Amino acid sequence: MATVRKTDEVLQVDMSDGRQVVGATKKLLIGPQDGAPTFAVRLFTLTPGGHTPHHQHPFEHGVFVLEGKGELAVQDELYPLSPHTVAHVAPNEVHQFRNTGQEPLRFLCVVPRHVEE
Amino acid sequence: MATVRKTDEVLQVDMSDGRQVVGATKKLLIGPQDGAPTFAVRLFTLTPGGHTPHHQHPFEHGVFVLEGKGELAVQDELYPLSPHTVAHVAPNEVHQFRNTGQEPLRFLCVVPRHVEE
Repeated sequence: MATVRKTDEVLQVDMSDGRQVVGATKKLLIGPQDGAPTFAVRLFTLTPGGHTPHHQHPFEHGVFVLEGKGELAVQDELYPLSPHTVAHVAPNEVHQFRNTGQEPLRFLCVVPRHVEE
Repeated sequence: MATVRKTDEVLQVDMSDGRQVVGATKKLLIGPQDGAPTFAVRLFTLTPGGHTPHHQHPFEHGVFVLEGKGELAVQDELYPLSPHTVAHVAPNEVHQFRNTGQEPLRFLCVVPRHVEE
């Protein structure tokens, strides 16, 4: 059964802990609740100065930047982020997303389904 | 190894056959070429009046609309598409994406990795 919705209708969850994660919210756009068998699609928003944890995990990220400016640290590399930047972070790579701009940084992040189960 | 690129750098492939598929191009943004283990992310553009095939297949779609206006037919339902519409089309559902607007309709479409192998 297909599911169709607008991002405005999706619950926004605050991910911030004030230390590892700052100014970050998440919306689970597509996932197990839709019966999606393979992957989940999330929408992250980072406020100016916000960032995700500098961490690693055994699953990958598929990222598409919608709005804003930032940077993606992966292992020893630093990549600029702007609208229509596409990134694949491989399993087990240490990484962090950072908003370095003056506006919200919004990006989609696709993961394997099990991450959201 | 992470890969980071802009959509402008990705090869655009014409998918049109003038019958089942009209005015449709595809960019494979993330896929097997990146070593992505689980999923592939594609960017589709439909010109005004353009459409994808009215078809079904045993894998799902995870869709996020970036720009434009259109509609998604799934089985016997019709859903409007506009920026920030999110859709999950389940395996084996008959579906078609159509541009009903005056501007290009652009959307991301996530599929299992094997679809792009």
